[in-house]
Amino acid sequence: MSGSIYGNQFRISTWGESHGKGIGVVVDGCPSGLNLEESIIQRYLDRRKPGRTKYSTPRKESDMVEILSGTFENKTTGAPISMMVHNQNQHSGDYSDIASYYRPGHADYTFSEKYGFRDYRGGGRSSGRETIGRVAAGAIASGILNALGIHVMAYTKSIGDITINYNKCSKDNVMISPLYMPDLDASSLAEDYLLNIMKEQDSVGGVIECIVTGMPAGVGDPTFEKLDANLAKAITSIGAVKGVEIGEGFGAANLLGSMNNDTWQYDNNRNLSKRSNHAGGILGGISDGSEIILRAAIKPTPSIGKTQETVNNQKENIQINVKGRHDPIIVPRAVVVVESMVAITLVDMLFANMTSRMDKIIEFYK
Amino acid sequence: MSGSIYGNQFRISTWGESHGKGIGVVVDGCPSGLNLEESIIQRYLDRRKPGRTKYSTPRKESDMVEILSGTFENKTTGAPISMMVHNQNQHSGDYSDIASYYRPGHADYTFSEKYGFRDYRGGGRSSGRETIGRVAAGAIASGILNALGIHVMAYTKSIGDITINYNKCSKDNVMISPLYMPDLDASSLAEDYLLNIMKEQDSVGGVIECIVTGMPAGVGDPTFEKLDANLAKAITSIGAVKGVEIGEGFGAANLLGSMNNDTWQYDNNRNLSKRSNHAGGILGGISDGSEIILRAAIKPTPSIGKTQETVNNQKENIQINVKGRHDPIIVPRAVVVVESMVAITLVDMLFANMTSRMDKIIEFYK
Amino acid sequence: MSGSIYGNQFRISTWGESHGKGIGVVVDGCPSGLNLEESIIQRYLDRRKPGRTKYSTPRKESDMVEILSGTFENKTTGAPISMMVHNQNQHSGDYSDIASYYRPGHADYTFSEKYGFRDYRGGGRSSGRETIGRVAAGAIASGILNALGIHVMAYTKSIGDITINYNKCSKDNVMISPLYMPDLDASSLAEDYLLNIMKEQDSVGGVIECIVTGMPAGVGDPTFEKLDANLAKAITSIGAVKGVEIGEGFGAANLLGSMNNDTWQYDNNRNLSKRSNHAGGILGGISDGSEIILRAAIKPTPSIGKTQETVNNQKENIQINVKGRHDPIIVPRAVVVVESMVAITLVDMLFANMTSRMDKIIEFYK
Amino acid sequence: MSGSIYGNQFRISTWGESHGKGIGVVVDGCPSGLNLEESIIQRYLDRRKPGRTKYSTPRKESDMVEILSGTFENKTTGAPISMMVHNQNQHSGDYSDIASYYRPGHADYTFSEKYGFRDYRGGGRSSGRETIGRVAAGAIASGILNALGIHVMAYTKSIGDITINYNKCSKDNVMISPLYMPDLDASSLAEDYLLNIMKEQDSVGGVIECIVTGMPAGVGDPTFEKLDANLAKAITSIGAVKGVEIGEGFGAANLLGSMNNDTWQYDNNRNLSKRSNHAGGILGGISDGSEIILRAAIKPTPSIGKTQETVNNQKENIQINVKGRHDPIIVPRAVVVVESMVAITLVDMLFANMTSRMDKIIEFYK
Repeated sequence: MSGSIYGNQFRISTWGESHGKGIGVVVDGCPSGLNLEESIIQRYLDRRKPGRTKYSTPRKESDMVEILSGTFENKTTGAPISMMVHNQNQHSGDYSDIASYYRPGHADYTFSEKYGFRDYRGGGRSSGRETIGRVAAGAIASGILNALGIHVMAYTKSIGDITINYNKCSKDNVMISPLYMPDLDASSLAEDYLLNIMKEQDSVGGVIECIVTGMPAGVGDPTFEKLDANLAKAITSIGAVKGVEIGEGFGAANLLGSMNNDTWQYDNNRNLSKRSNHAGGILGGISDGSEIILRAAIKPTPSIGKTQETVNNQKENIQINVKGRHDPIIVPRAVVVVESMVAITLVDMLFANMTSRMDKIIEFYK
Repeated sequence: MSGSIYGNQFRISTWGESHGKGIGVVVDGCPSGLNLEESIIQRYLDRRKPGRTKYSTPRKESDMVEILSGTFENKTTGAPISMMVHNQNQHSGDYSDIASYYRPGHADYTFSEKYGFRDYRGGGRSSGRETIGRVAAGAIASGILNALGIHVMAYTKSIGDITINYNKCSKDNVMISPLYMPDLDASSLAEDYLLNIMKEQDSVGGVIECIVTGMPAGVGDPTFEKLDANLAKAITSIGAVKGVEIGEGFGAANLLGSMNNDTWQYDNNRNLSKRSNHAGGILGGISDGSEIILRAAIKPTPSIGKTQETVNNQKENIQINVKGRHDPIIVPRAVVVVESMVAITLVDMLFANMTSRMDKIIEFYK
Repeated sequence: MSGSIYGNQFRISTWGESHGKGIGVVVDGCPSGLNLEESIIQRYLDRRKPGRTKYSTPRKESDMVEILSGTFENKTTGAPISMMVHNQNQHSGDYSDIASYYRPGHADYTFSEKYGFRDYRGGGRSSGRETIGRVAAGAIASGILNALGIHVMAYTKSIGDITINYNKCSKDNVMISPLYMPDLDASSLAEDYLLNIMKEQDSVGGVIECIVTGMPAGVGDPTFEKLDANLAKAITSIGAVKGVEIGEGFGAANLLGSMNNDTWQYDNNRNLSKRSNHAGGILGGISDGSEIILRAAIKPTPSIGKTQETVNNQKENIQINVKGRHDPIIVPRAVVVVESMVAITLVDMLFANMTSRMDKIIEFYK
Repeated sequence: MSGSIYGNQFRISTWGESHGKGIGVVVDGCPSGLNLEESIIQRYLDRRKPGRTKYSTPRKESDMVEILSGTFENKTTGAPISMMVHNQNQHSGDYSDIASYYRPGHADYTFSEKYGFRDYRGGGRSSGRETIGRVAAGAIASGILNALGIHVMAYTKSIGDITINYNKCSKDNVMISPLYMPDLDASSLAEDYLLNIMKEQDSVGGVIECIVTGMPAGVGDPTFEKLDANLAKAITSIGAVKGVEIGEGFGAANLLGSMNNDTWQYDNNRNLSKRSNHAGGILGGISDGSEIILRAAIKPTPSIGKTQETVNNQKENIQINVKGRHDPIIVPRAVVVVESMVAITLVDMLFANMTSRMDKIIEFYK
C-alpha cells in the first residue's frame, strides 16, 4: 500500500522513522517562481520542535532542515523539492522492552499485524517525528497561500476541560502562550494543570481550532472532493486525531434549520455577506468566501509512566511502565501540523479548481 | 475538477441531477464472481427512498435501479458495472423562483461562484438524489464485505437532543423504527418531536452512528491513507455532514491517557482482546480487529417553509419561504448513505492492504 | 483492478459490453460553459460506425448517443456528463462456439485467466464497441481543444504496404476516402487490395498518423508525465495497437545527432521557429509549439474466416473458422479513436499545466 | 503539475538536478520483508554510471547510493524507502553559455516556456542524471519480481544501422559487451563505428530490446490500464525515447491476420502454449504467459561538438559548439533504465491484479 503520498496536483511524499538516518519529504507540483530558502521552512519546524517548553519531551533535537533540490537562486524551479532533517538521537539500544510487548494506545499491535514484524525503535514510522515532513511541506504550501492572500492559523482551543474564552482571545497571544492558546488566562490555568498531570505520570487530550481567512468563494467540489471532506481527511490523517468538525460541527445536530441556516445580505455598498457562519465557510462542499473554521479532537498521549496492563510476545498478561519522559499532551506541538495539513489541502483544492470554467481556461491560454 | 469519482482500486463514478434524465453510477474495479442482480441493489435503495414515512418528503419516486453492464448470468465479470435510476418528476417549471435567489444553507451561491451559472432545478448536482449512485455502489461493496465476513450497520443515534439509550437498543429495532433508531422509546419520542417541527415549518439535525464488525486487524496505512482518515473523508463527503468522530471522538479530548488507552489481554484460551474500545477499532490508522465505531453529525435540512432573509439576483435583500414539502430531517434517509460510504471505503482499503507483505504476495502468485 | 477510468483532471469512465444493454461513458471534470448537444457527439460516433463502407462489418448499428446528465440549456454545467448508446443486436445465441475455445489473436484466454471465466458474447468488454465511450468523450475533448485553437487530425497512413505519398495528400481528402487516406490514389489501391483480402477471408494491418496543430509551447512534464509518454499510453490503450512513435520515431534510431536535432531560428519579424521537426513537437516531454506528430501501428483484425489451429475447453487441439463477417482491417474505424484518445490526453495535460508557474496562478485568482 | 511521481500501488517519487546537492527517490508501497541493502541497489546503478567505457562521458561520478529509511535489519519494513546519491561535480560556473541560448534537441526552450525561467546548470531536471532515481527504484522492483520468478532483461539491439544477429546472441554476452549487445560481433562493429562518430563530434541513436520471462498469465487490464499501454508510457517517459513497440510492433502493420495471429496448442502433457509470439506476450492488454517483448527507439544524443545553428536570448541567430565531452550515444547507459521502468511497471500491475477475482480475495483474507 502506497500511503505516504498526499495530494493530487500539489503532492507530498514523506519518509523516515524516528530512529533511522532522518526524516524527509519531497514536494512535487510546487509552481516555479516562489521564494524559498531554508530559514522559511525552519520557522515552521521550530514550532513543533521538542524541548521548547517544559510541557514537552525534553529530548534535544535541533531538527535543522536542508533543501536538497528544486530551487535555483532561492526560487522554486517547478522541479520537486526534496527536504531532509537528520536524526540525531539514533541510539536504538533502549527499545528492547518495547520490542517484546504492545504498548496500549499505540500502533505496536496493528503494525505487527499489517507487516508481519515492526521496526520497534521509537515507534518507527508511527512516531510523531513523521510530521516533520508534513510541516516542511506545509511551510511551502503556506507560502503559496500567502501569495494568494490566504492565511491559515491554528491554535489550542482546549486542554482537558480548560477552554479558551473568545472574549479574552487575541491572535498575538497564540505565539506568546507556550501552549499556543490565544486566551492567556486559560493558557496559564492549563499550564498548572499539565504540571499536575506530569506529576501523576499521566497525559491528557485537547482540541485544536483552525481558521482560514482570505479564501475565495467557489473552491471545492460538490460531490466526493468536497473542500470539507478533504480537510477532514487531512486532519484525521494526523496521528492522535479522533474527530473533526466544520463550523457548527456536532453542535449543528441539535439545532433547528431556522437557526443553523446562515442568511445572505447585501450591505449599502452592495457587498454580499452572511449574517452568521454556522456553515464554517463551506456550503455544498464549496467555499462561500467567509472564514473557514474547523476543529480537531486530539486524544491524550498514549505513552504514560503510570502502570498499565498489556501483553508480551510470550502471550503473557503483564504490567508495564513506559519509560522515558514523554509529552503529557500532544496538542501544542500538533497545532502547526494541523495548519500544515490544512494549507497543503487548500493549495491542492485551489489548483484543482482552476479548470472549473471554460471561460477562465480560454483566458488562461490566451 | 474531476470530483465525482471516489476510491482507488474499487472506484465509483457517479452522475446525474435531480431534474435530468436520471441518476447513475459506474463501479470500476469490482472483482469477478460476485453474485449480483437488481433486487440486491434495490433493497439498499429502498431504504433511502422518499415518501416511505410521514417524516420525509411525500414526493413519490419509485427509484427502480437498472444494471446496464458488468454482469453475466447474475455474476460480476470484472468489467465496470453501470447502474441507473430514471428520474420521474422532471417538470422543472417550478424552479423559476429559486433561479433568482440564493437559498440560505444551500449551495446556490457557491455553485454560481464556481461554475459561473447553475442548473437551479431542484438543486441540480447538489440534490440529495446524488446519493442514489453512492447507495447503489454501496450495495455492491457490502456484498464484497459480507463475503469476507465483514458487516457494516448504521443507525440514528440522536435527533435534536433525543438520544438513544444503549440499554434499550437492539439491532432488530433499527429496521422497525421509521427513523432507524435502535431504541424504540427514543424513536417514538423523536417521531412526536418531528411532527411538531413540521408544524412549525422548521427542520432539525441529528447524529448517525456506524458499527463495523468482523474487520480483520492490519488494514489501513500509518501515514496519510489511515483507515480513519479515509472514513472521515467518506462520511464528510455526504452533503449535510458537519463533523465526524471515531471511537471516543471529541470525548477523548477530555480524557486522561490512563483512561483513554485500551489495554490488551489474553484470555485463558490465549485469544487476544482489548479490555475497552475507546480507540473505535483503529490504532495508528490501522484496524486493530475490534469493532470500528464512528459517528457523523448531520445538520438540519436547509429547506424550510419558515420565512427567511436572503438576496436575489437584482442585488436586493428579500424574504422567502422555500416552497414544497421537504424532509424535516435528513438523518433517517442518510443512514444507508453512511453505511454505503463506509462499505465502499473499507473495500478500497482491504484491496490496498493486499500488497503490504512480501510473503503474502508470493503466496498469492504461487 | 480499476482500469476503465482514464485521465486525471479531465477523466472518463467507460462501461459496457458488445452484447449487454449498451455502451457508455461518464466524463468528469469537463468545465462549465462548453456548448454541447447530442449532434456534436454523433458526428464523431458516425465516423467509427460499422457498415459505413464495404470494408467494414455489415452489421447495422445506428449507435445513436443520448446525453443523460451534465448539461443545462445546451451548455455543460461542470457536473459529470453521462452518455449512452443502446445496443441493438443483443442476440447472444450465436456465441456458443466461442465459449468453448480460445480464438487466436483474441483476449479469450487472457480474460479467462484473469477473471476465472468470461462473458464470451462478442468479445464482451474486449469488443471494439468499447471504443464508443472513448469517441463520445473525445468529441467533448475536441470541443475544448477547438475553443483553445488546438486541432487534432488523424488519418490512415498505410494499409499493408500501401503508403500515402505526402505530395499527393490533402486534408480534405481524408473525409472523401472511405479509408480516411489523405492520398486518394493510395486509397483506391488499398480498396482493391482489401477486396482481395476479404475474398481470401484474411485481414491486414496498417498505420495511423495523427497531427496536432495550435498546441501552445510549455505543456507536459519533464519526468514521468511527459506529453509523449501520456500520448504513448493513450494510443497503446486502444486495442490492436502494437507500436507508437513520435516525430522521427524509430527512424531516429538510425540518425546522427547533427541530422536529428532541429535547429532554432528567428525570422525577420523575430518570430521563433524550428527549421525541421524531427522531434514531432515535443522536447524533453514538453510541447515546443510546433506540430505534434505521432503514429500508431495497428495489427490485422484477429477475426478471420480462414481455417486456424487452436484449442478447446476439453483440452483438445482443434481447427476453427471464425464465423460472421468481420472487418478485414481495423485501421479506418480506429482513426477517430486515435483522434479521441489524443484529444482527451491533451485536455488533461493542458489542465495539469495550469499550475506550473506562481505568477500565472496569482493572476488567475486575482 | 505533479509529474515526478510514478505508479499507483508501488509508487516512486524522484527528485534532484544534475548540479544540485544530489539525486534521489522515495519508493512508497514496497511490501515488508524484502531483503534490501545498499549493495543490491549499487549493482544496478553501476550499470548506468558514466565513465565506465570510452563510449560514454569521461566525467567521474562514483554515484554511491545511501538508503535513508524503510529498512530494519536489512529487510524492508513496509515504510517508504528513501535513497540518495550525492552529486560530486557541482561547479556550475561552466554553464554561463547555455544560460543564454537554446541548445538544439534539448529541453532548454520548452523548460523556459513552461516555468518562466530555467535552472540551466547541466540541464537541471532534464539531465540524464534524473534516471538515477529510476534505476535505484528499479533495483527494488526487480527484487520483488525475482521473488515471484519473473526476470526482466534489456540489451542493445542496434546502434545506427548495426543490428544484432539473433543466431549469434547469448544472454551472457550482454554483460561482456561494453555496449550491452548480446551479439559480440555486432558489438565490436558498433564500437568501431562509435569511435568514428566521436571523431566527427557527432552522435547516433539505436534500439533497446527488453524481454520479460516468468510473467504469469492474466495480468493487466482490458481497457485503459492495459499492460502494454502502461509499458509504453513507462518506456516513453525515459528521455530520448521516440518510439516503443510490443511483439511484432510496426511490423504487424504489414502482416496478414493469418500470419500475425499466434495459434494455441496443447502438447502431449496437456500444457498450453502458443506456436509463435507475434503478440509479444500480451493479448487484449493482459499477459498471456509467454515472454513479453518490447523495443524502444532512442534518438541520438542532442549534445554534439559539431557546429550548430540556434538562437540566443538577444533574439539573434547564432552558431554554437556544445562544449564538454558528451556520450556519443545514450543507448548503452539507457539499457538499465529501460529494465528499471519495465520492472517498476510490472510490479505495479501485478499488485493491481490481486483484486480481480472474488474467490482469490476471499482466499487471501481467510
